[in-house]
Amino acid sequence: MTGGTGFVGRWVVQALRRYGAEVVLCTRGASGEASPGVILADLLDPDAADEVVSRAKPDIILHAAWCVEHGQFWQTPANLDWAAATLRLARAAGRHGVRRFVGIGTCFEYDWPEEGDCIEGRTPIRPTTLYAVTKDATRRILAEYAALQAFEFAWGRLFYLFGPWEHPDRLAASVAIRLARREPAPLSSGSAVRDFIDIRDAGDALAALALSPVQGAVNIASGRGLAIADIAGMLQRAAGQDARLLIGALPDRPNEPPRIVADISRLRDEVGYTPGASTEERLTETYHWWREHLDQNAAAQ
Amino acid sequence: MTGGTGFVGRWVVQALRRYGAEVVLCTRGASGEASPGVILADLLDPDAADEVVSRAKPDIILHAAWCVEHGQFWQTPANLDWAAATLRLARAAGRHGVRRFVGIGTCFEYDWPEEGDCIEGRTPIRPTTLYAVTKDATRRILAEYAALQAFEFAWGRLFYLFGPWEHPDRLAASVAIRLARREPAPLSSGSAVRDFIDIRDAGDALAALALSPVQGAVNIASGRGLAIADIAGMLQRAAGQDARLLIGALPDRPNEPPRIVADISRLRDEVGYTPGASTEERLTETYHWWREHLDQNAAAQ
Repeated sequence: MTGGTGFVGRWVVQALRRYGAEVVLCTRGASGEASPGVILADLLDPDAADEVVSRAKPDIILHAAWCVEHGQFWQTPANLDWAAATLRLARAAGRHGVRRFVGIGTCFEYDWPEEGDCIEGRTPIRPTTLYAVTKDATRRILAEYAALQAFEFAWGRLFYLFGPWEHPDRLAASVAIRLARREPAPLSSGSAVRDFIDIRDAGDALAALALSPVQGAVNIASGRGLAIADIAGMLQRAAGQDARLLIGALPDRPNEPPRIVADISRLRDEVGYTPGASTEERLTETYHWWREHLDQNAAAQ
Repeated sequence: MTGGTGFVGRWVVQALRRYGAEVVLCTRGASGEASPGVILADLLDPDAADEVVSRAKPDIILHAAWCVEHGQFWQTPANLDWAAATLRLARAAGRHGVRRFVGIGTCFEYDWPEEGDCIEGRTPIRPTTLYAVTKDATRRILAEYAALQAFEFAWGRLFYLFGPWEHPDRLAASVAIRLARREPAPLSSGSAVRDFIDIRDAGDALAALALSPVQGAVNIASGRGLAIADIAGMLQRAAGQDARLLIGALPDRPNEPPRIVADISRLRDEVGYTPGASTEERLTETYHWWREHLDQNAAAQ
């Protein structure tokens, strides 16, 4: 497992262990020493992938590491470095007889239909940021290479995420933090419809995909489209009566796509994953997580 | 210029110099020492791209290096290494203010139409080998990255090639060699239609593309579809009356596409390139080149 300490990765690791998998983390390891379940390595180092795979001898590689710095990752040249690092990891997988390789994609690979849902293998692909172009291109190479090397390949396409440890500038976190501080939360018109999934459910789904025999792209999402204003409304209800949303206080972004929603037939029927709770329940939990988190931070100061 | 000693590259270098460009070759350099116009470097070495670009300080990078071993290159895992090397070279171009980056693609990126020609930006893309998938995916990343870094990017898509120093197992070379040896040349039905361009003309066209301001994919081809049997027939006419083709002596390959022909509007009208001679004249020259080449080899033994 690479990227196992990130926003997505930490929940995938927990889920993998819960499902009974033995997990070895490959991490740059700012925190702490190497331990039996941890290999310290920087995959941007050209020799790292081969060393890590030959040491860990994994049955499955779940590769979640990539450049993900909030706001920067869309267009940073580091996307090219992560594409190259991912190709080296795949080469190492082929060389050392890894059985299965699972990578992380994005809903931004799709040419979102104005109506209806994004369906793997059917909805056209039209990425428009360096991040999404690079993810899509990497997937194309990995799929072909895996078929030739006879290892399994799957690609979990993440939709919109929320939950604990989300970057505070991202939508659900920023609204939850405002509301938890009893400040009014400004929003755009909030009419854009998105498919939001709790990061813990996304982690479970990716772990289930990794441990399944399913190949190719699989949407990791709730399958339910909700207007941004409705997402904010659910957080507001969790926060209680005096919490205020300022709908329309911010301008809508130009060219904002009206609808980005996943078809989750593959995840549900082939991987066999269904989330343990509704989006509203998860948003309520997330609000309370932020509430406690802010209280703890305040107490620590 | 990378790959400047290869089958394509050597003619590109000659053309660039003829057009007045100052050329610095980046080569692994099996033959000879470094000289003022040559930098010895292996682009598969992770640090090479940055070193080469910072030393050469090129205005334009023309990147022709890739794995091209006859018969092997279609599916070799080395395609992933060359994709990664190309991403490093593009990163170096962005870092060192290179004005223009030109890469080499292939007609195998296209989903060839049953009738009509392959048109850049219009004919769908559907590569089916690791080589073509990797080339296509690399192009997607480079185009997006170049736009963000504000350097120019062009991609010359090579169609079918023939000419001096072609691998002797490839079509035109193998027929020419048989005929020059006064052996009958066995062929399939020869009904498949292909767009063949002489390697010297392809070299001129790529050099013209490199020195032009044209961006995006550009077909490097003759624009003329000829049946394989007609190509062989032109070589036979060059060889003279007693030369024999055995049309139909070899089986047709299963799933051989009936037609792969380029639209060359972009090359002709935007780059401003037209070949100096017809395909028949070039095939005649190529036959005589093989004839002399075989005579010299025989004399040397």
